[in-house]
Amino acid sequence: MSVVISNKEGAHDPEGETILRDLVHRSGFGDVKSIRAGKSLRIDVEAPDGKTAETLVRKMCDDLRIYNPAAHSLLVEAGRQPA
Amino acid sequence: MSVVISNKEGAHDPEGETILRDLVHRSGFGDVKSIRAGKSLRIDVEAPDGKTAETLVRKMCDDLRIYNPAAHSLLVEAGRQPA
Repeated sequence: MSVVISNKEGAHDPEGETILRDLVHRSGFGDVKSIRAGKSLRIDVEAPDGKTAETLVRKMCDDLRIYNPAAHSLLVEAGRQPA
Repeated sequence: MSVVISNKEGAHDPEGETILRDLVHRSGFGDVKSIRAGKSLRIDVEAPDGKTAETLVRKMCDDLRIYNPAAHSLLVEAGRQPA
């Protein structure tokens, strides 16, 4: 499974904003409109199907406080492989 | 676009390994087999189509050394919204 933890929409994201303003725009990439930074976790689980895997990963992220629900969005999806 | 920067397959990933061993397995989530940590960037660009957007984002990541091709894998995909 692919997990992305990012600051909630609407909240500030100082890391992404700094990359955008001080690196990307200064270097002339004006077509880039917004950057939101986050943490990615690729999690391989043993489960009979994708739905069970997703439920397990969500429970793990909740139980272990891998993210803070008050501050972060959690995106859980079927896994992808880097190229 | 959704960008994920992670350590190359085969290379060690101390962050993911520590989460797996010292947090996840100790807490009884034995069905979790592997965790790879990485950096996520959600990048909104102004482009006529997805292919152009992807090309622009890849060029930006290369030109600005947002990742190190010797050490990292870069995954670029159509963007997704956090739930």
